[in-house]
Amino acid sequence: MVQNANSGHPGAPMGMADIATVLWREFLKHNPSNPSWANRDRFVLSNGHASCLLYSLLHLTGYEVSVDDLKRFRQLGANTPGHPEVGVTPGVETTTGPLGQGLANAVGMALAEKTLAAQFNRPGFDIVDHYTYVFFGDGCLMEGISHEVCSLAGTWKLSKLIAFYDDNGISIDGNVEGWLTDNTPERFRSYGWNVIEEVDGHDHHAIREAIRNAQAEADKPTLICCKTVIGKGSPTKEGTHGIHGSPLGEVDIRETRNALRWRDGPFEIPLKTKTYWDDKEQGELRENLWHSTFSTYSEQHPELANEFLRRLDSQLPASWSANTESLITDTALAAESLATRQSSQQVLNAIGPPLPEIIGGSADLSPSNNTFWQGALDNTPLTPEGNYIRFGVREFGMGAIANGLALHGGFIPYCATFLVFSDYMRNAIRIAALSKIHAVFVFTHDSIGLGEDGPTHQPIEHLTSFRAMPSVKVWRPCDSVETAVAWKASIEDNSGPHILVLSRQSLPYQLRRADQLPLIHRGGYILREHEGALHEDPDVILLATGSEVTLAVEAAILLNRKSIRARVVSFICNDVFDCQDDQYKEEVLPSHVDCRVSIEAGSTLCWHKYLGNKGVAIGIDSFGESAPADQLYAHFGLTIENIVNKAEQRFNS
Amino acid sequence: MVQNANSGHPGAPMGMADIATVLWREFLKHNPSNPSWANRDRFVLSNGHASCLLYSLLHLTGYEVSVDDLKRFRQLGANTPGHPEVGVTPGVETTTGPLGQGLANAVGMALAEKTLAAQFNRPGFDIVDHYTYVFFGDGCLMEGISHEVCSLAGTWKLSKLIAFYDDNGISIDGNVEGWLTDNTPERFRSYGWNVIEEVDGHDHHAIREAIRNAQAEADKPTLICCKTVIGKGSPTKEGTHGIHGSPLGEVDIRETRNALRWRDGPFEIPLKTKTYWDDKEQGELRENLWHSTFSTYSEQHPELANEFLRRLDSQLPASWSANTESLITDTALAAESLATRQSSQQVLNAIGPPLPEIIGGSADLSPSNNTFWQGALDNTPLTPEGNYIRFGVREFGMGAIANGLALHGGFIPYCATFLVFSDYMRNAIRIAALSKIHAVFVFTHDSIGLGEDGPTHQPIEHLTSFRAMPSVKVWRPCDSVETAVAWKASIEDNSGPHILVLSRQSLPYQLRRADQLPLIHRGGYILREHEGALHEDPDVILLATGSEVTLAVEAAILLNRKSIRARVVSFICNDVFDCQDDQYKEEVLPSHVDCRVSIEAGSTLCWHKYLGNKGVAIGIDSFGESAPADQLYAHFGLTIENIVNKAEQRFNS
Repeated sequence: MVQNANSGHPGAPMGMADIATVLWREFLKHNPSNPSWANRDRFVLSNGHASCLLYSLLHLTGYEVSVDDLKRFRQLGANTPGHPEVGVTPGVETTTGPLGQGLANAVGMALAEKTLAAQFNRPGFDIVDHYTYVFFGDGCLMEGISHEVCSLAGTWKLSKLIAFYDDNGISIDGNVEGWLTDNTPERFRSYGWNVIEEVDGHDHHAIREAIRNAQAEADKPTLICCKTVIGKGSPTKEGTHGIHGSPLGEVDIRETRNALRWRDGPFEIPLKTKTYWDDKEQGELRENLWHSTFSTYSEQHPELANEFLRRLDSQLPASWSANTESLITDTALAAESLATRQSSQQVLNAIGPPLPEIIGGSADLSPSNNTFWQGALDNTPLTPEGNYIRFGVREFGMGAIANGLALHGGFIPYCATFLVFSDYMRNAIRIAALSKIHAVFVFTHDSIGLGEDGPTHQPIEHLTSFRAMPSVKVWRPCDSVETAVAWKASIEDNSGPHILVLSRQSLPYQLRRADQLPLIHRGGYILREHEGALHEDPDVILLATGSEVTLAVEAAILLNRKSIRARVVSFICNDVFDCQDDQYKEEVLPSHVDCRVSIEAGSTLCWHKYLGNKGVAIGIDSFGESAPADQLYAHFGLTIENIVNKAEQRFNS
Repeated sequence: MVQNANSGHPGAPMGMADIATVLWREFLKHNPSNPSWANRDRFVLSNGHASCLLYSLLHLTGYEVSVDDLKRFRQLGANTPGHPEVGVTPGVETTTGPLGQGLANAVGMALAEKTLAAQFNRPGFDIVDHYTYVFFGDGCLMEGISHEVCSLAGTWKLSKLIAFYDDNGISIDGNVEGWLTDNTPERFRSYGWNVIEEVDGHDHHAIREAIRNAQAEADKPTLICCKTVIGKGSPTKEGTHGIHGSPLGEVDIRETRNALRWRDGPFEIPLKTKTYWDDKEQGELRENLWHSTFSTYSEQHPELANEFLRRLDSQLPASWSANTESLITDTALAAESLATRQSSQQVLNAIGPPLPEIIGGSADLSPSNNTFWQGALDNTPLTPEGNYIRFGVREFGMGAIANGLALHGGFIPYCATFLVFSDYMRNAIRIAALSKIHAVFVFTHDSIGLGEDGPTHQPIEHLTSFRAMPSVKVWRPCDSVETAVAWKASIEDNSGPHILVLSRQSLPYQLRRADQLPLIHRGGYILREHEGALHEDPDVILLATGSEVTLAVEAAILLNRKSIRARVVSFICNDVFDCQDDQYKEEVLPSHVDCRVSIEAGSTLCWHKYLGNKGVAIGIDSFGESAPADQLYAHFGLTIENIVNKAEQRFNS
């Protein structure tokens, strides 16, 4: 495959082929004809550059990955992309390549299995009972995220997580001894793992024994340290970094084939091999056996069974729509002025009880992120049914574990930290977006409005940077009602991840007419119309989000007093607004009204798209300062007065 | 201070006061009157929320931090911000708060010390000989970056790094036993550290002994595990998470004062205490002693001594300007078409030899990032004078270690990975920008142009996201000459960090007149003028960067054939262009020429700023695909034809 594509990574696939053979042929409980069977074992290739190994395994065992697909490895539109992508290839459980995150996803999947089992299994019915296997190499081990998630896996006693370390001593720069001298078994024992050391990764018997021992461990996750030779089988290149990421070339291919006594042509698979590997029949039997158990379970526990099917099918409860509609109406009636992080907690209190699939937590900021709601129960080894996760100060691990929870099925994960620390977990959010993972990232303390903690804690560029990221929706609500709508959309729209950007400080409730409420979910809407004649265009449009909406409203009142017809648009989610029909967009932002002012306590870069030549952006393009929030707002010109002045100047120019 | 500011973190300062007292009173080799003495011990507070402890120590020992400054803790413009910021407060060595990074900075400083010592010390003259001390808590330990950098510190045998773990068992969510069960001593031993366990962090004798033992260790970094009580001294709140991040309140303050039998008022320091702490006199003696050694050293090794002073003073060699000017001219004459990552390596080959302060490396992508240049020598325990660092697959650790190297002084660090993995190290770049650290971040494989590795490896939003970050300069050169200019600017301008964004694929050399060369460093310049009459305005301006400049040039040729006067602006660094005088900017982008097309293989969000209402952005606002690069360029409409069509349409509309 690599030679044919003239691109890719042969080293790890050749080095891990023996381990893969034992695991996939003798242990993996799956059904190639149904990659979404709920109780399948999960297999994660954290060293995603070994993708051609995974595609080969999928093809050989009987997934819908054809020889033609293998021939189209790394070609445009093929289901065999350079690195594995979930949703693109049947049987691929998660998107890997960025190192360390597959391991983290696997921890999330194993946590999902344990939690789901605690919630649904009943005596005699282990409806949820599978292993999570993960392959990884030196790269994943060096990445910091491996520390975060393996520490948690030990704390959580995820005994059905079995990890294979491809210990080949080689990374791209060469022999790892110059930059990786950890005693890895000792390190993992310090996390509370069961460690099986010094397994010969080319000895099928030794691999088999190690897997059996791992499965027998009831209290700890297991690390199987496999000594392997990178590029095993190439007489000239095995054991060198030259084989990691480049095709072998025709000469080396020929020599390797000779050494292996492989007589068949490229992509020709002998019948004997085909038969040996084909797992479709056994797969059907496995799944049928489970279905027969589930059938009896359904008779004895009909409500649980229905609930299980509902959750695995990503269907919201029947009561969802009515409940959330009334939540929004009630929130509007209550008209409370709260920090949006507090509003968010109120929403969780309301939507949480009838929504057992939500599971989440915070990276050690629960009291600040307001994510621990009334019905939250800590997920611990003693309460594995719990729906609240104490991630500790591990943002990146948290994000990638949330991705794993979502990919497993049965859960809608949410996780939280301060917006500025989204930097630490950024690539996990990117993978969520690329993989269309339904997860909710809750980021509080969203601007200089957090005050005295200062510029290290004050996000500036973060809103722009997430708005530039494809396939992720960024919500920045201005009050309690917008927060409820943002949560509603984040739960209902499972096409990808959502980011909720919430304030530390209290925000005044914005009065709305009833007919405005349904407009919020369109991403941008007229919150306050000018005071001129009906159907007249505004002179100026003020665009604002979150905590700055109240400034825009106050400024609009003053502008109208000065006979400047000012409209306020609350731009809660520009990603969603951009997807509205042209007519709606033109109603909200008439193209001939070119006097526009954006107000947001962050980088202005993302606003020019809506401002045009005559528009002016009020924001912050430097780092923040350490001081009480109100002083900072004045210091950075985020004041009613400045908005009025800028709008007036622009209108009169 | 916390009570007075009504904001801040009393818990860690009270819990670590005993450790700080022993270290600062009995061991720390510094001179409060000269915070920039080259051979001072470095002290890093990685748990930066304990800032009031650090400010107190600085005040008490005699730095320019007054009682009034302490009273203005966390107020606008004070030199005592919420979290420590280097450059703001005399004696603060690095900016901390985002957890784990201070520890990483300390590893960088200790590496700087060891390397500088290897380069400059001579028998009898330990010109460079100091410790790096770092305080940290559970939060830093949980963060993944702690794994990356402590693993490296062990590999590098940084025996003069002494770390104090504030093991108080409490984090924001409560008692850490629910989310931190690591055997930390075992973990650090697995990294090759000397671990001193079970030190009572309130027993001065035990602390003293531990520090002595740590200093005696010649081969390994030392971790001193200090059992402490958070908020020690508060009768009602000590040992609880309630004291971590909130003022105690008047009642608890009173009780704490009573318990401590503290009779003096707030901010009143008894003379006895003042005298006990004042370290100015001893500090002068320490520095004078060093100067007298250095004076003899200067006599015996005058060139070395001058070189040491030059480097510590951040002065470039006298030959620098002439050398780099001729490098640029030579590069222009050579007119080679190379990938800019290759051009970058050529620049390093040229500027490296006379510039021993550059030190850098890659996160295990040396052969891909092309960062290992001809004069590079691996920095290892056997060759500690080396200027090349094999970071392993540890992007975040790499970035924060680079920051530490720069902050120590004597070095201009550079470090490299793929642009997409800048996500992993983003907050280290942010801290570099906030701290005005002179470091160069080299990011190759900068777009879909990397081809078959696919969307996990193809940056899209990254250019926009860095352009939105304050105080960092993003350079995306289009050919060998622009790469040389970008490196030149990155080395000369030490006002903050630079990012070099480089292509994997070969880029054609762009012909220029000699008078164009000096314009490159202005960030944006007319690379190719239209073919109409002189002094006529262009009909259309094509703005492009990096690999897309050649497309713009080809499109401009076709447009000119169609009698559309097309100008090409190479926009190598918009941050620098934005700082040019208005006249220059108007010359390059005349405001009345509103037919503008931007071409960049990434998010278009950042281009609207330059495009205005009539402009059109050609870019990529979705994720990439896995295929050969040329096919991807066609697939995403990054073609000459599409540019011509869009420009024509827009011009005729």
